Amino acid sequence: MCEAAAYILKDGKEELLLADVDVIEPDGEYLRLISIFGEQKTVKATIQSLNLVNHKVVLVEK
Amino acid sequence: MCEAAAYILKDGKEELLLADVDVIEPDGEYLRLISIFGEQKTVKATIQSLNLVNHKVVLVEK
Repeated sequence: MCEAAAYILKDGKEELLLADVDVIEPDGEYLRLISIFGEQKTVKATIQSLNLVNHKVVLVEK
Repeated sequence: MCEAAAYILKDGKEELLLADVDVIEPDGEYLRLISIFGEQKTVKATIQSLNLVNHKVVLVEK
């Protein structure tokens, strides 16, 4: 499976926001993340980087 | 491997921009895409959606 872990940068540190992320969709100023288990999180953030081979998404708060 | 294909929406149609994408990084108004083979493309676009399990990234031109 190719899901990724989504981290959010807070005070320069990466905090795990949601594991096993399948879908990321912008929704206005927000990002909606959906895990392979159907768990959803919406955050006011932008994507800082995606590393698909490393299964890692880093977001930064707006 | 968990690379994805990146498509860009033009006139409502998805065109393949870069296959086997590993890294996507915003760079100002642009996105830099890097494939697992080291091929790079920079486009003036934003991420419309990511589907990691389906290995698909859809971008939309700015």
